[in-house]
Amino acid sequence: MSYLLPKLSSKKDVDQAIKSVAEKVLVLRFGRDEDSVCLQLDEILSKTSHDLSKMAAIYLVDVDNVPVYTRYFDISYIPSTVFFFNGQHMKVDYGTPDHTKFVGSFKTKQDFIDLVEVIYRGAMRGKLIVRSPIDPKNIAKYDLLYQGI
Amino acid sequence: MSYLLPKLSSKKDVDQAIKSVAEKVLVLRFGRDEDSVCLQLDEILSKTSHDLSKMAAIYLVDVDNVPVYTRYFDISYIPSTVFFFNGQHMKVDYGTPDHTKFVGSFKTKQDFIDLVEVIYRGAMRGKLIVRSPIDPKNIAKYDLLYQGI
Repeated sequence: MSYLLPKLSSKKDVDQAIKSVAEKVLVLRFGRDEDSVCLQLDEILSKTSHDLSKMAAIYLVDVDNVPVYTRYFDISYIPSTVFFFNGQHMKVDYGTPDHTKFVGSFKTKQDFIDLVEVIYRGAMRGKLIVRSPIDPKNIAKYDLLYQGI
Repeated sequence: MSYLLPKLSSKKDVDQAIKSVAEKVLVLRFGRDEDSVCLQLDEILSKTSHDLSKMAAIYLVDVDNVPVYTRYFDISYIPSTVFFFNGQHMKVDYGTPDHTKFVGSFKTKQDFIDLVEVIYRGAMRGKLIVRSPIDPKNIAKYDLLYQGI
């Protein structure tokens, strides 16, 4: 069974989610619904969202609806996933130069769950940057991904 | 006459300022009080803070007191000045690769006032990135600055 993930369809919606999601990791998937890598990622997100519901709130965001955020986060590959906690952006050291966002799909549901747990625990301890628990070989290589935005 | 700028001395204080400063540009000067370039910048900030009081709230932050923020913003030169509006970080395109923070001192009070006005007006229109109005020749060259942190 998979769960239909909620969408944020304007900058105002995203602003509101950032402000209102409290004591949970806010997961924002920036992409396009019809993109094949986004579909892959969205399946992982939707299949884990129920189990993670106490720790995370997951939303889909269409890059074309929120150009201000797309530019702010320098999103040039989709999907790109960004994390917040209590209104603050959380950085993650994936072992790549970009700590702002996760680019591409997760390889497994467990990779995503592990990452959310590490962000949650770090944020609860007052951190703004955490180290990714994902095996580097499961981190997407950017040039294999769709680059069309 | 110059005005003694308030200080934020812990991550909690900075968190609180980010959350509570509303409808104004929050200006966070990350540095060290005794550093000569910080002293230069602090004089500009304190001399303009009264005139800007309807548009900006200016705070001094010691980098050693807030390692989480210092790392989050990749602060490796001081002073570095970061801007927020209604809880959200504002990026500024200074014509340099780093849009996250302003590095060094402003050359003139007017440069700082112009920048705050542009950020304020941009933020009020829903922007998260604005283009710096400062003449590029007044933008500090990083390698001329103190690098000790």
